[in-house]
Amino acid sequence: MPELRKDPVLGRWIIIAKERGKRPTDFIVEKSESKGGFCPLCPGNEKTTPPEVLSYGDSAHMPNTPGWTLRVVPNKYPALIIEGDLDKEGEGIYDKMNGIGAHEVIIESPNHDKAFADLPPLKILLVLKAFRDRITDLGRDPRFKYVMVFKNFGKAAGASLEHSHSQLVALPILPRMVLSELEGGRSYYKYKERCIYCDIIRQEIKLKTRIVCQNDLFIVIAPYAPRSPFEMWILPKRHSSSYINQDDASFHALASIFSECMRRLNICIPNVPYNFVLHCAPLRSEPLEHYHWHFEIMPKLTQIAGFEWGSGFYINPTPPEDAAKFLREAKL
Amino acid sequence: MPELRKDPVLGRWIIIAKERGKRPTDFIVEKSESKGGFCPLCPGNEKTTPPEVLSYGDSAHMPNTPGWTLRVVPNKYPALIIEGDLDKEGEGIYDKMNGIGAHEVIIESPNHDKAFADLPPLKILLVLKAFRDRITDLGRDPRFKYVMVFKNFGKAAGASLEHSHSQLVALPILPRMVLSELEGGRSYYKYKERCIYCDIIRQEIKLKTRIVCQNDLFIVIAPYAPRSPFEMWILPKRHSSSYINQDDASFHALASIFSECMRRLNICIPNVPYNFVLHCAPLRSEPLEHYHWHFEIMPKLTQIAGFEWGSGFYINPTPPEDAAKFLREAKL
Repeated sequence: MPELRKDPVLGRWIIIAKERGKRPTDFIVEKSESKGGFCPLCPGNEKTTPPEVLSYGDSAHMPNTPGWTLRVVPNKYPALIIEGDLDKEGEGIYDKMNGIGAHEVIIESPNHDKAFADLPPLKILLVLKAFRDRITDLGRDPRFKYVMVFKNFGKAAGASLEHSHSQLVALPILPRMVLSELEGGRSYYKYKERCIYCDIIRQEIKLKTRIVCQNDLFIVIAPYAPRSPFEMWILPKRHSSSYINQDDASFHALASIFSECMRRLNICIPNVPYNFVLHCAPLRSEPLEHYHWHFEIMPKLTQIAGFEWGSGFYINPTPPEDAAKFLREAKL
Repeated sequence: MPELRKDPVLGRWIIIAKERGKRPTDFIVEKSESKGGFCPLCPGNEKTTPPEVLSYGDSAHMPNTPGWTLRVVPNKYPALIIEGDLDKEGEGIYDKMNGIGAHEVIIESPNHDKAFADLPPLKILLVLKAFRDRITDLGRDPRFKYVMVFKNFGKAAGASLEHSHSQLVALPILPRMVLSELEGGRSYYKYKERCIYCDIIRQEIKLKTRIVCQNDLFIVIAPYAPRSPFEMWILPKRHSSSYINQDDASFHALASIFSECMRRLNICIPNVPYNFVLHCAPLRSEPLEHYHWHFEIMPKLTQIAGFEWGSGFYINPTPPEDAAKFLREAKL
């Protein structure tokens, strides 16, 4: 019998269609053809992107020239734009504001053919630190309330460029999903005086069945009510609401576990398209007792159709216990 | 400059990327190859589906044999199953219940090659009445709280069968999206003592810019904060929370306007994949002053990627005023 499971933070229900019990090999992913052609993110083509806002690499190299190991540039076709004042306005019963924000592209490696999952942990470390540095910098702009960091990998997951990159959008309002998580965490804390994510981690460590991998500082789980097959969450074991205030040891441990779980996923379903999203506290927050930063990684293996649109429910053909077992047992 | 618009009922923000200003011809839809092969929904193959729960047609014809003009059967691979008791259970901090529900397929026509948008209004009328009859019947089962009626058309919108069909799922709980609409409507009503959808209709009729088409009883608009390009909502002009209690004149007017707006959409973007969802009051509700039933039609032209997953925001490259104009001016 299918099982309805509730996400404990958001209250979102998921239908686990056990009967379908899809295994990794049931998901066939077509390798998107390497298009060749011109890549604006490759070294030598720096002039085709807007000027960089951050780069790491050889200290001798000039900005916007080759020699970088990681580069952050404004998106050439931004969803929101950085210049202007924030204007809020009514239109009869409707509300609108102008689209102030920043939209940046993190070019993760100079190597066109290297996917994020194939980067060595020390290169992933650079990406994770670039997220920190850009969030910190954008957090100084009082117009922004939140920086959403995410990655689209593969055409099916919305990537339009092949060269490995992630993105961030600085927003003038707290998005709904962040608000819902904060509210879910707050109402649990009010009742229990404990962080709900800390309780989730405790229960998962006790049960073991949904653990993908872990190290001293981080744990990767298949969440209890996953929207998508093989969904994974990376959580710091020690309570913290702030991604940017991690110490160096924590960044190293995160890079190592991020690399490991992505390699496991890639062994189970080679070349799988996916999205990941960093969930963290709003900009300039005090440390929050009721919120716990984390990454959510969502393979793109099922479709959003009428039922999902209308209900906000998701149908998932792979129980997370099965997914975690496949991921755990993948031979690295 | 892009514009952030808020859905007045749900509080969901949409980024209208005016600069991209996509016109109908910017959306290329590949015609999914007519696969031929075996179709379980075609006349003559009635024995390959579970036995029908409803059929319209020649009164002389026997159940589960050809002669029908419309047929409703249980889904062979249901997301939820009808037998059993509703069990709710905790699992530590998590909550679950077993997947009791009904999942049915409405076979809209015996003609394999006739898409919904191509059906004459009198055939669409049958589909709309089948929705009513099945909701009414399933509403007698006290285990169910809501019947979600929807359609997936085209592979990109999640359809796995080509033969024109819609679906319904009877649910043991009120889905999140329905709850949010009911709450949005209730809180507006508390403040204004008017239905928010009635106010939306009044404002749209005054402004005219987002009207697609209308008749005496129904209006079709491009909503102010659409998730997708060319999104349309069909609303009854007279306040009502109950889809199933419409009189015959109302069903006729609905069939006529539904047919018209789908033909307009199909002229703008031939063969466009789409989802539609019926939004109506929970089963066995009293008439609700603060809720207004309607259909939402969402063409599948953009992708849900990391930003949308993380934020609950949608980026829409076609302002609804532009979409409404294209749809209005389509030559029928």
